[in-house]
Amino acid sequence: MSRRSFSRRNFLSLAAGTAAARPLMAATGGWGFDQSAAATPGWRDQGVLNLAHSPYAKLRNVPVRAVTIEDGFWAKRRTTNVESSIPSMHEELLEHGRMDNFLRLTGGSSAPQKGPVYSDSDIYKWLEAVAFALQSEDNRALRQTAETTIREVVAIQEPNGYIDTYYQDDRKKDRMTIETQKRGHELYCLGHMLQASIAYYRATGDRTLMDAGMRYVDGTILPNFGPDAHKKPIVSGHPEIEMALIELYRTTGERKYVELAGYILQGDPRADLKPREIVYMNCGVPFTTKTKLQGHAVRAMYACCGATDYYLETGDPAYWKTLEVLWKDLSQAQMYVTGGVGARSEGEAFGNDFELPNAQAYGESCAAIGNMMWNWRMLAATGEARFADVMERALYNGINSGMSLDGKTYCYRNPLAFDPASGEKIRNPWYDTTCCPPNLERTFASLPGYFYSTAKDGLYVHLYHNSEMKWALESGNGIVVTQKTNYPWEGAVRLSVAVEQPEEFTVNVRVPGWSRESQVKVAGAAVDGVRAGEYLPIRRRWSGETMVELAFDMTPRRVTANPAVAEDTGRVAMERGPIVYCMEGLDQAQGDGKTFPLYLAKRSGAIHEEFKPDLLDGVMVLTHEGAKGMEPTDALYVLGAGVVRTEPAELKMIPYYAWDNRDESSMQVWVPEVG
Amino acid sequence: MSRRSFSRRNFLSLAAGTAAARPLMAATGGWGFDQSAAATPGWRDQGVLNLAHSPYAKLRNVPVRAVTIEDGFWAKRRTTNVESSIPSMHEELLEHGRMDNFLRLTGGSSAPQKGPVYSDSDIYKWLEAVAFALQSEDNRALRQTAETTIREVVAIQEPNGYIDTYYQDDRKKDRMTIETQKRGHELYCLGHMLQASIAYYRATGDRTLMDAGMRYVDGTILPNFGPDAHKKPIVSGHPEIEMALIELYRTTGERKYVELAGYILQGDPRADLKPREIVYMNCGVPFTTKTKLQGHAVRAMYACCGATDYYLETGDPAYWKTLEVLWKDLSQAQMYVTGGVGARSEGEAFGNDFELPNAQAYGESCAAIGNMMWNWRMLAATGEARFADVMERALYNGINSGMSLDGKTYCYRNPLAFDPASGEKIRNPWYDTTCCPPNLERTFASLPGYFYSTAKDGLYVHLYHNSEMKWALESGNGIVVTQKTNYPWEGAVRLSVAVEQPEEFTVNVRVPGWSRESQVKVAGAAVDGVRAGEYLPIRRRWSGETMVELAFDMTPRRVTANPAVAEDTGRVAMERGPIVYCMEGLDQAQGDGKTFPLYLAKRSGAIHEEFKPDLLDGVMVLTHEGAKGMEPTDALYVLGAGVVRTEPAELKMIPYYAWDNRDESSMQVWVPEVG
Repeated sequence: MSRRSFSRRNFLSLAAGTAAARPLMAATGGWGFDQSAAATPGWRDQGVLNLAHSPYAKLRNVPVRAVTIEDGFWAKRRTTNVESSIPSMHEELLEHGRMDNFLRLTGGSSAPQKGPVYSDSDIYKWLEAVAFALQSEDNRALRQTAETTIREVVAIQEPNGYIDTYYQDDRKKDRMTIETQKRGHELYCLGHMLQASIAYYRATGDRTLMDAGMRYVDGTILPNFGPDAHKKPIVSGHPEIEMALIELYRTTGERKYVELAGYILQGDPRADLKPREIVYMNCGVPFTTKTKLQGHAVRAMYACCGATDYYLETGDPAYWKTLEVLWKDLSQAQMYVTGGVGARSEGEAFGNDFELPNAQAYGESCAAIGNMMWNWRMLAATGEARFADVMERALYNGINSGMSLDGKTYCYRNPLAFDPASGEKIRNPWYDTTCCPPNLERTFASLPGYFYSTAKDGLYVHLYHNSEMKWALESGNGIVVTQKTNYPWEGAVRLSVAVEQPEEFTVNVRVPGWSRESQVKVAGAAVDGVRAGEYLPIRRRWSGETMVELAFDMTPRRVTANPAVAEDTGRVAMERGPIVYCMEGLDQAQGDGKTFPLYLAKRSGAIHEEFKPDLLDGVMVLTHEGAKGMEPTDALYVLGAGVVRTEPAELKMIPYYAWDNRDESSMQVWVPEVG
Repeated sequence: MSRRSFSRRNFLSLAAGTAAARPLMAATGGWGFDQSAAATPGWRDQGVLNLAHSPYAKLRNVPVRAVTIEDGFWAKRRTTNVESSIPSMHEELLEHGRMDNFLRLTGGSSAPQKGPVYSDSDIYKWLEAVAFALQSEDNRALRQTAETTIREVVAIQEPNGYIDTYYQDDRKKDRMTIETQKRGHELYCLGHMLQASIAYYRATGDRTLMDAGMRYVDGTILPNFGPDAHKKPIVSGHPEIEMALIELYRTTGERKYVELAGYILQGDPRADLKPREIVYMNCGVPFTTKTKLQGHAVRAMYACCGATDYYLETGDPAYWKTLEVLWKDLSQAQMYVTGGVGARSEGEAFGNDFELPNAQAYGESCAAIGNMMWNWRMLAATGEARFADVMERALYNGINSGMSLDGKTYCYRNPLAFDPASGEKIRNPWYDTTCCPPNLERTFASLPGYFYSTAKDGLYVHLYHNSEMKWALESGNGIVVTQKTNYPWEGAVRLSVAVEQPEEFTVNVRVPGWSRESQVKVAGAAVDGVRAGEYLPIRRRWSGETMVELAFDMTPRRVTANPAVAEDTGRVAMERGPIVYCMEGLDQAQGDGKTFPLYLAKRSGAIHEEFKPDLLDGVMVLTHEGAKGMEPTDALYVLGAGVVRTEPAELKMIPYYAWDNRDESSMQVWVPEVG
């Protein structure tokens, strides 16, 4: 308690709201169910998800603004995100006419419609990134840009609530037909508008956009579409609306939005989708009939998010059973070591079991984000660390790779091997389908919201980084948790837990699945029962400030894949802490980076590590004994084994997320082994 | 000479023609260049290609009918082809309305247009299969069906020569626009019509269809399309027309068809194709600007066929340089061990260098056939055995796999690994795009034409099988070659060479590239200088009948791939003779075939062989020591190496071409190795 003083008032001042924000519950008629379990949080006190009233959520979110990320790994990333990525993406969006699409409809622009059918969603996702950034910090410029954007969006709203620049004006006749629902992304755009509006409401208390979103749902969707015989069927098309509607319910208390989401997740047989449409779109049949992750990977992940949200509100056991089956499929047969998902470029889709090619990996950034979002919801339902392990793997690797270190270029696909001779450019400032860039931005902006959860029994600590959390337990007792660490480069975390009032509760600290030997000390005394891949429950009467010391095993690791993964047979990947490594050709003593040479790793021997502060914004570099192929062999297939002549070489590895941030170079995560 | 007696008349009776066949040269104005080098062969004496007047062909084809395939490996295949595949495919074509498309235009059918835009080509390819079958044997039923088909095709011909059921009637206005040329396959269909018509002419002397094809080219194409400013540009769209036009020239002596093919191979800049169209379609820019095999694999292979044909007629050195570059790309970086090509399902395309996935392999049957056709032309240009090695590899494996043993189902794609859990059915009786089935049929029907070539210096022997060739050397001297062998199961071939008149010439016998130790004896005396992957030139004064004994090394072989092939790292494939092997799960003692278990092959130890006459129409089975994974591991990625618990297992392997001819089963060609 030494350097700090606080009171209950200090803690809860976060929850007070501002005069500008109207009390939402009063405005909408309040919650339709028992509120006694918890106070209704005000807009400032709602996290990435507002699970305060979700009966099947074991964990609740902590608001983004309650956690301050301090110096270290994520600090520069998040600064770059707010100072470079979000503004430069706004410029790109304007330059490519994405706001002109709105202005055109109110006479403010004479430019023709630009971009694909789902272009509005890119504006909304960017707006959501701004909203999360505003939850962490006051940024006048961003707020003004956001307000202007919202004003211009709402200005095109029709009396029935409809907003979609692609289907207003000339294409009005195609609006919400079954064909348009399948491919037109109207509900996808609406979903992103709702998510942005909720994040913005939670940032500012301003519900202008959220009210517009509700008018769209209430005025266009609910009266005309739904299961009733006199209404038309809904096809999700690209799942997204489901989780957005449930979050709208969580924000407004209007149960009808959960019911609408449930109907959409059920699929309306009247829409009569073809089997391949059902697979590709991940909608059209009851979610609970799924047994495998299939089809378009982002659609699949967003469908799982919506279904988990639905479970969190309804506790439907069929949903949970399906979610567990799908999660097993994800984690045992369909996920890259980077946490990326969606192996196939064709249809941007999940492949068959163990179909995880490296150079050809699709691994769309949005799909890795969807994976993290889904696991965040599964974690909320259970408090089980396996979900947090997947989340962390995706976050540090398959998501983090998606944005360049300068925050100005983005990966759409995230391959695990790269040959410059392919001629492909992986990082680009703009894609005509620019879904990934603002998705990455909203993820990094919302990151503080993923560090902690509260539960009935106390607190969960999911992620580690220099940081400070000021929040309250579900009992109402104020709590401040600070982390001092050089994670992910070092495995020691000093966690200070300070409470306003002495209270017996549990602090559940996550012991990562990759940490072979971990130690936990509480107030200097070692704690037993520390198990990798579990939360260690530290139950005690907490009083004043208590030091919890964690030590995770940062020894670099050799990782092999299930031999059923065809491209990883006879290969090894290196990991250290939560970070997956790769080799870039340009780092190798005998490599020029331009060609795709053969590098092999010895099957044995130590992996050495060295922190290089000036390399790639500071990275731990690994080195390992290995070999380099001397010459490309002329023959594609040869008799016997001894095809490759090699010479000894020291292999140098950098974190995968940092690849392709220098000159173009060959890259591989999975290195062939040599005896 | 013992059991045979023949005279020059007997030998050359094949070349005499029949009264029914008009002398073609007279009808068309004859050859435009020096004919002194060789007599103009009559229709009965023209091979798969008629290279009698091709100045840059080192080798000339031997007519299909000059070679009789006798008992053994190909005999049943070819009987099945004629008795089962060709008739059942005809039924399928009729049932799916492919002939109704023609009849509809003359009032003979009221059925609507059926099938994709290129559906006419399937009729033509089937007709070409019939034509090749008729070159080998008189088959009244097939001949009558073919005559009816030809009559119905020709009946729809318009006064300007145009024939294309898709663009007659309602879609007439779209005919031959640039967009239709790109996607409409008009010239592709014309190309297949010409190829079928030429094969039918060479079978029967009947030039009805060929005359119709010439009317189409002369009446519609040549007057309106071409490089002249007042004509419209041509886009090949799907290369095929190029080789067909050159074969039409070879059959008629009309040089204008070579010139037209050359113009098409050059690409007309006025068509203004997009870069991705140029890559995908393999046309639109000069063929000689190509440096890699890219885009749609069948298009690429057919373009290479046309370009090689063009080289054979013109000797253009830029073409040869390009063909060599592309062949190096094929054989060193882009070909499956089965001779299949075209790795990617997306765009049915070539991938990057060394992108050769196994389970996801596209390896379309048509592309493997295209590979064989191209190498046949490269072989004709050079007489170099490397081209015959590729041809044989494709023929016995990646092509032969394409038709089931009963001849009634076909592979479109030919994967090198298969997991029944994928739910995919690889062999099917019908595809709406049914390009592969009749393509396989025409290939097997024309097979005798690929066994031998003549050259100025004598004879080339390319393929081995029980057979008899009755033909003439280029000197005019009659020659009979008989092969007695159990090839490909045994490596001994007794080749009897009998000549009408004693003459000094060379018999070039192919020593396969895979035969590590080969012996050749001529008249009982061993010959020196036998080298794998080369033709052994046996030059002597041949007189009467001479026995040439060949012995190839049939020891089963372990083959490894260039380590740059990601999915083959740490894996081994087994071959024996020209046959590539695979494992089917259902053959393994501990396998049920339904799941995709982990089988590993020991890095050392002998491969045992046993001929099983009752298995899969008779196959040599290989067995090898190995291991089976005990349990599927729960984890996709694990620390360290020792992930798999295994138990010893004997691995049983069958020829790849015979896979998926019993109950559905897992399959793999490339088996992971274990120490």
